[in-house]
Amino acid sequence: MPADHGILYVVGIGPGAQAHATPAALAAIADAEVIVGYVTYVKLVSHLLAGKEVVRTGMTEEIGRARAAVERARAGAKVALISSGDAGVYGMAGLVFQVLRDTGWRRGEAPELRIVPGITALSACASLVGAPLVHDFCAISLSDLLTPWALIERRLEAAAAADFVVGLYNPASGRRTRQIVEAQRILRRHRPGTTPVALVKSAYRKLEHAVLTDLDTFLDHEIGMLTTVLVGSTSTYVFEGYMVTPRGYGNKYTADGEVRPGQRPGHSLVVPEVE
Amino acid sequence: MPADHGILYVVGIGPGAQAHATPAALAAIADAEVIVGYVTYVKLVSHLLAGKEVVRTGMTEEIGRARAAVERARAGAKVALISSGDAGVYGMAGLVFQVLRDTGWRRGEAPELRIVPGITALSACASLVGAPLVHDFCAISLSDLLTPWALIERRLEAAAAADFVVGLYNPASGRRTRQIVEAQRILRRHRPGTTPVALVKSAYRKLEHAVLTDLDTFLDHEIGMLTTVLVGSTSTYVFEGYMVTPRGYGNKYTADGEVRPGQRPGHSLVVPEVE
Repeated sequence: MPADHGILYVVGIGPGAQAHATPAALAAIADAEVIVGYVTYVKLVSHLLAGKEVVRTGMTEEIGRARAAVERARAGAKVALISSGDAGVYGMAGLVFQVLRDTGWRRGEAPELRIVPGITALSACASLVGAPLVHDFCAISLSDLLTPWALIERRLEAAAAADFVVGLYNPASGRRTRQIVEAQRILRRHRPGTTPVALVKSAYRKLEHAVLTDLDTFLDHEIGMLTTVLVGSTSTYVFEGYMVTPRGYGNKYTADGEVRPGQRPGHSLVVPEVE
Repeated sequence: MPADHGILYVVGIGPGAQAHATPAALAAIADAEVIVGYVTYVKLVSHLLAGKEVVRTGMTEEIGRARAAVERARAGAKVALISSGDAGVYGMAGLVFQVLRDTGWRRGEAPELRIVPGITALSACASLVGAPLVHDFCAISLSDLLTPWALIERRLEAAAAADFVVGLYNPASGRRTRQIVEAQRILRRHRPGTTPVALVKSAYRKLEHAVLTDLDTFLDHEIGMLTTVLVGSTSTYVFEGYMVTPRGYGNKYTADGEVRPGQRPGHSLVVPEVE
């Protein structure tokens, strides 16, 4: 490729605060001539944009945003398409590949792709409420704008039944309020009403707000587009206002670090025949 | 609390390369007088450790590591307990709370807790192979050292049946080789053998190695303790050597961004009665 070939950085800037954006993400933005992003995310990095062309678009214009970024980079510009969190987790990375495919792009052609990972909303939110994601978890988006509700329901049911910690993205919006009620109903069928639930809004941003509540009553709190909902597994507990999912050390070791009778370090957990 | 009260930072340093550790993580390490961590992770930040006391421990000494960190911080030191990836995702954060609970700690007492999120192995690995995690996914650890295999199996079955993208942590080790074979068998019952699978080892470290393969043949490749396995959903496709899970825009919009007949932007996806 020529020296002036286009580059498309697909960048996750993390939750929003500068302290949680990686050097790699900042370097990509610094190197770019053109920044493309949803207006709210562009604002989060506004201090880095002097002298750059900025293409801001609205929330529902994801396809236009991806197309604009690909087209400018294909024409030779260095472009950073930014997502909050990680661009690869419910972010713009998927759409970039869809647009590249639709336009017949081949690997080796311009633009060169550079995907820069970021801190996910799940990680950011979890860090504010304790350690809810220390064992197996699922991420499920409740938005049925692009996904059939029947599939979302099937995933909720499976995650609930198999005792995953569940992180719910896009739980509700102004118009979309039914899905989180359905999700509560499905999870409640499989878990006690006392199961810990955390609601985290705008993690590491100005209006950050975290609530620790439970499966029976979390719908009494405000839940909107900027809320991430973390629902504990049946092992998750609350300790001094923190939400914690144990990794399972207690199955094998005592509090003093002694191996429990019948167990061996480095070997499969021995489960009693009759429980 | 007095000015000299202890602080316990629980820090995720991301995949390893400096470019992917956040300013917040680096600031925590810089502020700490004592660094506690598994020897491999301590090495990743060795350039930041001048003048600090370093407590390195082996892989299987997680409980001792957490206890050492809590005890030193409780006694008044500023301590950083470091994990690779995110300390809250299969990391040390859970064990810290277990130790705090066992020792009768109360919120407001020393040490003060500060959990610093990091880029997860899932995000790091995904960014190297494309955009596999753009829609609903599960994280499952195949280690049965602390978790009954029956529960792991139940989660694999649920995740496979409900068509989640699946990220497998701890897929195998020298002694533990049966679990990944079982996981393949379970996933294969629900998905075609051509389902894309990515194996990523040591993402963003010196020995980084990524392979894009499929569900039928991925066991032919080397899989060890440092490998993360990403298994696509039935929607995941391979494009120009990248692994991509679509978000679902194609359900509602044409490649030109036109709304498909019968669909409305901002409203639930309309699924035909008969498919």
